[in-house]
Amino acid sequence: MKNILGREIPEFIEGYGKVKPFAGAYANIDRISKKEVKINCALPGQGKVLKSIREAILECGLKNGMTISFHHHLRNGDYILNMVLEEVANAGFKDIKVAASSIFPIHAPLVRHIEKGVVTGIYADYISGPVAEAISIGLMKNPVIMHTHGGRPRAIEAGDLHIDVAFIGAPTCDTYGNINGVEGKAACGALGYAVPDAMYADRVVAITDNLVDYPACPIEISQEYVDFIVKVDSIGDPKGIVSGTTKITKDPVGLIIAKTAAKVIDASGLLKEGFSFQTGAGGTSLAVAAYVRDMMKKKSIKGSFAAGGTTGYIVEMLEEGLFRSLFDVQCFDLKAIESYRKNETHMGMSASMYGNPHNKGAVVNLLDVMILGATEIDKNFNVNVTTGSSGVIMGGSGGHSDTAAGAKLSIVVTQLVKGRLPIVVDDVTTITTPGESIDVVVTERGVAVNPIREDLIEKLNAAGIETMTIEALKSIAEEMTGVPEKIQTEDKIVAVVEYRDGTVIDVVRKVK
Amino acid sequence: MKNILGREIPEFIEGYGKVKPFAGAYANIDRISKKEVKINCALPGQGKVLKSIREAILECGLKNGMTISFHHHLRNGDYILNMVLEEVANAGFKDIKVAASSIFPIHAPLVRHIEKGVVTGIYADYISGPVAEAISIGLMKNPVIMHTHGGRPRAIEAGDLHIDVAFIGAPTCDTYGNINGVEGKAACGALGYAVPDAMYADRVVAITDNLVDYPACPIEISQEYVDFIVKVDSIGDPKGIVSGTTKITKDPVGLIIAKTAAKVIDASGLLKEGFSFQTGAGGTSLAVAAYVRDMMKKKSIKGSFAAGGTTGYIVEMLEEGLFRSLFDVQCFDLKAIESYRKNETHMGMSASMYGNPHNKGAVVNLLDVMILGATEIDKNFNVNVTTGSSGVIMGGSGGHSDTAAGAKLSIVVTQLVKGRLPIVVDDVTTITTPGESIDVVVTERGVAVNPIREDLIEKLNAAGIETMTIEALKSIAEEMTGVPEKIQTEDKIVAVVEYRDGTVIDVVRKVK
Repeated sequence: MKNILGREIPEFIEGYGKVKPFAGAYANIDRISKKEVKINCALPGQGKVLKSIREAILECGLKNGMTISFHHHLRNGDYILNMVLEEVANAGFKDIKVAASSIFPIHAPLVRHIEKGVVTGIYADYISGPVAEAISIGLMKNPVIMHTHGGRPRAIEAGDLHIDVAFIGAPTCDTYGNINGVEGKAACGALGYAVPDAMYADRVVAITDNLVDYPACPIEISQEYVDFIVKVDSIGDPKGIVSGTTKITKDPVGLIIAKTAAKVIDASGLLKEGFSFQTGAGGTSLAVAAYVRDMMKKKSIKGSFAAGGTTGYIVEMLEEGLFRSLFDVQCFDLKAIESYRKNETHMGMSASMYGNPHNKGAVVNLLDVMILGATEIDKNFNVNVTTGSSGVIMGGSGGHSDTAAGAKLSIVVTQLVKGRLPIVVDDVTTITTPGESIDVVVTERGVAVNPIREDLIEKLNAAGIETMTIEALKSIAEEMTGVPEKIQTEDKIVAVVEYRDGTVIDVVRKVK
Repeated sequence: MKNILGREIPEFIEGYGKVKPFAGAYANIDRISKKEVKINCALPGQGKVLKSIREAILECGLKNGMTISFHHHLRNGDYILNMVLEEVANAGFKDIKVAASSIFPIHAPLVRHIEKGVVTGIYADYISGPVAEAISIGLMKNPVIMHTHGGRPRAIEAGDLHIDVAFIGAPTCDTYGNINGVEGKAACGALGYAVPDAMYADRVVAITDNLVDYPACPIEISQEYVDFIVKVDSIGDPKGIVSGTTKITKDPVGLIIAKTAAKVIDASGLLKEGFSFQTGAGGTSLAVAAYVRDMMKKKSIKGSFAAGGTTGYIVEMLEEGLFRSLFDVQCFDLKAIESYRKNETHMGMSASMYGNPHNKGAVVNLLDVMILGATEIDKNFNVNVTTGSSGVIMGGSGGHSDTAAGAKLSIVVTQLVKGRLPIVVDDVTTITTPGESIDVVVTERGVAVNPIREDLIEKLNAAGIETMTIEALKSIAEEMTGVPEKIQTEDKIVAVVEYRDGTVIDVVRKVK
């Protein structure tokens, strides 16, 4: 069958199941259920601290075929996933499903566990590095399932993704399971992605290298949700957890794009008292923030909030009084962690509060402007941030689809050509985010507005910003690069790309 | 049938259902389920602010027979329950069940709603004033169900108490439903009792007199849980919400009792580094805190935490460095509210985190010492804080049973005789808290230790504290007052007293 975006998807995918086809960004948002949760109650006097990860695995009653989960706040410095899987493998378990909110190059040992049949299933919002490459060439029998950052908590809460045992990397944990990410040698700040795992898994194990006396303070994840605690020497490498500081691009092309995006924001009429904003940690995105910062100062605008994974740059805007508060699901750099620890207006949010379409209103719903990246964008404004130019998985939605769906103005900022390939194409290799939720594409060669946003085209034109059709942008790109060859794939589906509501927006097939 | 404490309870109670008899304080703590929750999802752009309580009632789809809930942080200054029931009555609804975490004298208009059939069921942890009196004389057809502060979230989470619409009195609320109790003219501090209602009700309405721009900061209850918001002129009378300051007793008898209780704590060996403590807001309880404070200073002890409803007195101990942190479910006075707002080591906790026996470990489980009151205590150490000397309901467990079950040392402090009636009796009128969870009774005439705590008797005697049997205490009391006459009751059951695990520990019968 074809879904509403014209993507050919089987009705049933082996190793995945029956497909619910994507039916629009705002379909399926009605009345839903959050699943029943099973709890092993603790008696007074009962302790939670165990001696080893092995002991925790056994106490949790792990069995072949079960699903274990991980969160990615330790990013490319994370030791937790590797440590746990090593023990799982050593204990002789097979057929384990890994639900990791993201997978990074550091998780390369996972490839070996897949090869040996220890791990036979993967759920993730973002996958890069050797694991992504191994998946793309068909190493796994069953397709991996790719969520968005808001779709993952949705799936967990709905029971679509049932977690048997959640392992939480805890920069600080007390002896009864209260966790925070702001203290300890592996401090990573906000722990928003771990919250749904803690709340909905059958069993929850906190793994920490900073076991403190009861009670930890502050508490980001409460003792109510933690069954067991294991102390290890190190949960991660601080160098991989955070960059020292995130930086604005110095590339002149990137700066042109950013400046134009800022003009689009200004022209949209959204840049006024109470403005809300999110941008990624990339250099061009941060450059947009820099121009927005200048405009806010000039106009004496105080914004309501900035959201996201947070960087020091956004923290500076908070400190300057340009926003009243920040909502943070993960901290990208040291300055963000420090701010999250000290400033009460720098507030944490769970992944569900951040982007889950199936709750009573996520933070993304109140975003005025979202700055997004793209690997490809097609003539229907569909965006690919899942696969690279060779068809190999190199990312995933993360919060891309969630913020695009929520924000009043979603702007993709990108160079028109990267690595001699056009970014604007007829059809993207993989649809990550549907075009209906993308409003504008800003490149160094021109600005294209989604035709469904006639109001915006008028506003931009009134402000003297030239716009062109996306087809025109595509032509300019193709003039520079020629029409790229179609990526050759085999039939085998290596990844199912779920939209945030759990429908299938696309699949990734094995690369040749 | 008789339950394990010898209380005669029908196997089936009309208007309540099948009785699960109380089987011990630590029975039924094993593997449980938290129920499925139904959610009405919000689309981006969808607003939540409604014009009136009436509109909210209708939007929530209230129907005859449904259960609506309230929390009691506004205490005897609460306008919410009365305002909502007025609208419910005006709209012509009948047969509504009211699940209020506590009911106070200010809720007298509820009597009229009961008389008119608007309200036909009540669930509460504590009831005092005209509503309690009306219930006691048999005004309601069905018995009210009395929970503990930890048993209420247990019942809500398990689905034993299903809430159709929760009304949350919000001292501050933003336009998307983020709530805190620390700002606004009706600031009451921590909102812990409202958390389970917000998380598990079908529909949640925030009623506020301080509607602020998005986002509120701090956030105690998140937008994820709130369907609608209504602004009203006033949610409560600050004079009834908090006392200006809570005070230590000046009564010499109270001081003697408190001093003895402090000696018991000292002798128990628990008063050491990491000590944890809870006491109520009563004058004698606070006097115990004062003696404990002195001892901690003398011995240079730093405690781990104090918990509870919090008073300025406990805040002072935090500020002096005698505790590392406070866990707060409700603030009793202005100083506590101020501290909760400003001090990050003064942490909030939900009712479930506080006392729910059916989670992975409540805060009460880690209490070293709990200071409790009693209206009556019997020779098996069972405590009544539910009914008064005439058999009329005048309170309820609140956190009494929860903290008694959790704490390593539960001390009842009471005068031996009150209002010419002995406090130590053969059988208490109503069992609120089972004797197995009470360790010591301290009166001005002597100290009785529960014989199951042989270890404690030895320690007290070694420290030179004379102990006597509870029977001896009873004899002393009866020498002063004579043996009191048994309260005469009719067969009709007006209240079912549930222990924290949902079993029935006792019933209250209609007074003659």
